[in-house]
Amino acid sequence: MKPILTSTALGLVAVVLAGSALAGALTPEEQIETRQAGYTFMGWNMGKIKANLDGEYNPDQVAAAANTIAAIANSGMGALFGPGTDKDVGSVKTRVKPELFQNMEEVGQLSTDFKDAADNLAEVAAEGDPGAVKTAFGELGQACKACHKKYRADD
Amino acid sequence: MKPILTSTALGLVAVVLAGSALAGALTPEEQIETRQAGYTFMGWNMGKIKANLDGEYNPDQVAAAANTIAAIANSGMGALFGPGTDKDVGSVKTRVKPELFQNMEEVGQLSTDFKDAADNLAEVAAEGDPGAVKTAFGELGQACKACHKKYRADD
Repeated sequence: MKPILTSTALGLVAVVLAGSALAGALTPEEQIETRQAGYTFMGWNMGKIKANLDGEYNPDQVAAAANTIAAIANSGMGALFGPGTDKDVGSVKTRVKPELFQNMEEVGQLSTDFKDAADNLAEVAAEGDPGAVKTAFGELGQACKACHKKYRADD
Repeated sequence: MKPILTSTALGLVAVVLAGSALAGALTPEEQIETRQAGYTFMGWNMGKIKANLDGEYNPDQVAAAANTIAAIANSGMGALFGPGTDKDVGSVKTRVKPELFQNMEEVGQLSTDFKDAADNLAEVAAEGDPGAVKTAFGELGQACKACHKKYRADD
């Protein structure tokens, strides 16, 4: 997996945030902001894959993007849906429906389906066949929608 | 790599954002927000690794966190430092110093060093030895600092 260009000039944000994450002790605000950061970053990588499928196909860029989505999907984001994160917290807004927190068993299955679809896309992307990537990319999008229809407001 | 619990209830944000990322056409605001999302998410995973090193060590959680950091580091974040992202854009603030954009060759080397340190941490974490992870984690933190001292404001 080769990056186009990896510029990590602000990477120490990582170390700064690490303090507040000790023992997983993120505040509800931090949990909401962190899970949204994960979805935003996955979204950017989904967009790169779509751009490759719609235009010139760079297998290295697609593989890196798919690997990033899979890694984030497997990073344990469930820990970012803790107590107090089922609604806006001060100026930190969330679109999650409170119902999500009453249906964690189903949500767990939906998230496993998403993880499996992300893992499959990463495996397919590593092989470099655009047609297979298009199929796996569509399946991943469907796995997203399956949860959003039920548990994200305005969907 | 096994997640503790992967809950991806809002994953369709990915597909929504994908539209604006077609052909990589992110606005300067979106580029700043997306790179900050990447650093925020890496920060959460750095924090989990530190928590594991300071407390009870869960090799699966550490491996997943290290893999996520490495994937983000290899995702081509350089594309998120485009024209117009060297300063605040409206309400979107950035701590990057304009000097970064005049020293891309050095920044490229610093980012390669960061990527290498992240890849090394992911490889070491997969082996499950806390002592080796502690060393690789420290090296990764140093790679962050090397760039921040020069190119992030307030460092």
